[in-house]
Amino acid sequence: MKPQLSIIKIGGNIIENPTQLSHLLELFSNIEGSKILVHGGGKKATETSKRLGIESKMVNGRRITDTESLDVAIMVYAGLVNKKIVAELQSKNTNAIGMSGADANAIRAHKRPVKEIDFGWVGDVDGVHSENLWKLLQAGFTPVFCALTHDGAGQLFNTNADTIAAELAIGMASHFKTTLYYCFEKRGVLLSIEDENSVVEHIDSSSYKELLDQGVIADGMLPKMHNCFHALQNKVHEVRIGNSSMLEKTDSKFTTITL
Amino acid sequence: MKPQLSIIKIGGNIIENPTQLSHLLELFSNIEGSKILVHGGGKKATETSKRLGIESKMVNGRRITDTESLDVAIMVYAGLVNKKIVAELQSKNTNAIGMSGADANAIRAHKRPVKEIDFGWVGDVDGVHSENLWKLLQAGFTPVFCALTHDGAGQLFNTNADTIAAELAIGMASHFKTTLYYCFEKRGVLLSIEDENSVVEHIDSSSYKELLDQGVIADGMLPKMHNCFHALQNKVHEVRIGNSSMLEKTDSKFTTITL
Repeated sequence: MKPQLSIIKIGGNIIENPTQLSHLLELFSNIEGSKILVHGGGKKATETSKRLGIESKMVNGRRITDTESLDVAIMVYAGLVNKKIVAELQSKNTNAIGMSGADANAIRAHKRPVKEIDFGWVGDVDGVHSENLWKLLQAGFTPVFCALTHDGAGQLFNTNADTIAAELAIGMASHFKTTLYYCFEKRGVLLSIEDENSVVEHIDSSSYKELLDQGVIADGMLPKMHNCFHALQNKVHEVRIGNSSMLEKTDSKFTTITL
Repeated sequence: MKPQLSIIKIGGNIIENPTQLSHLLELFSNIEGSKILVHGGGKKATETSKRLGIESKMVNGRRITDTESLDVAIMVYAGLVNKKIVAELQSKNTNAIGMSGADANAIRAHKRPVKEIDFGWVGDVDGVHSENLWKLLQAGFTPVFCALTHDGAGQLFNTNADTIAAELAIGMASHFKTTLYYCFEKRGVLLSIEDENSVVEHIDSSSYKELLDQGVIADGMLPKMHNCFHALQNKVHEVRIGNSSMLEKTDSKFTTITL
């Protein structure tokens, strides 16, 4: 039987709040077995860009990563956010090792092809170096990933953190029985966005279609759900969506997604 | 017989120059056996502080690391500089993994005690977690260290990169026959600072005293030499000081230091 691997992606809002982040890192530290943390950048990158006098470039409402913005992303994601999380995890007896996709050649990507929009230094993932990650996990380390990838030729890319978490889960699925957790501020997929108690506790391929038709899954939840099913279709055991309480051994509700 | 380990510290001036840096990383990639790279931050941190409107705090001519300055150091050293080096090393077939002292609990430190000056978030090294580093090296990874340490309780520190290199060499000396390279812009210790051909090719404890008496070793070279002898007194095999050409298999001159 394959060993368990938990991959937990935490969102930007949690990172903004030191108390919430600390609580979440405590829960993460308590997870048994092999685990990987993936974090977004939060508003720190936007704030830092602003302070540096770098304007956000937008085309058709989509953010463009030019060279200066990429440098800020590298500073904030791989530097400030990643190292503070790593230092705090070490204080909680988790032997964390902070990584971008370039470290240990973990996540290869290519520049997103230019169609209507040139997104700049945004990377679409080619694959995960599962053997290198396996070695790190076997040695007892807990990788902590920021949302950066590389092309193997020296270029770093900005890549969506949800996508990175899904690709890591897919990449490690041959070695591990992998559960992917998307941890954000809501308790899960909600039937009614205003009602935190309306959590849809289980979604599979057929109920997913119904929820789409009903318009329950829309906006920001669409790409997240796309990542979930992409992962499940590629041998990831299970995906869970919810707030940090889903990492506690309580009977709190969250959304479980299976094929 | 212990296996070889090369620890190469590169200075800020090399990091400022992409062509020189690229050449050095090529030479580093060609070094056989286990190796570790340690890099300083260069002027990027000062530049970034300036752009962010953060003033350098100085007391009695010594730089103070306040909370804002530490954040910039984390962004620039562990983020921008470290990840670009890692990505470039990956392109040169070196399986680099970028690290601060918090990653893999590699380098523990404590806040420098306040005597005449409170240096702020500056860390004095307590020790290196040689077992964790040994695991990484055994697995075929090449650690790339920036000049940050941690206290194990969640606090990161700014620590001199020369000191980090020496402490890593000392920490690994029980596992490896360790050679420490201080790579900077000069060809080595020079009898006359204006004459690049006046390299002192070998220094030991007794000739060191003579060079000190003669005033050949002074200013910035003093703490570097202190680090060298501290390393040698703690089982490091050999220390070399020179420019990048000492990493080439040529007959170029550099300074070798032994006890």
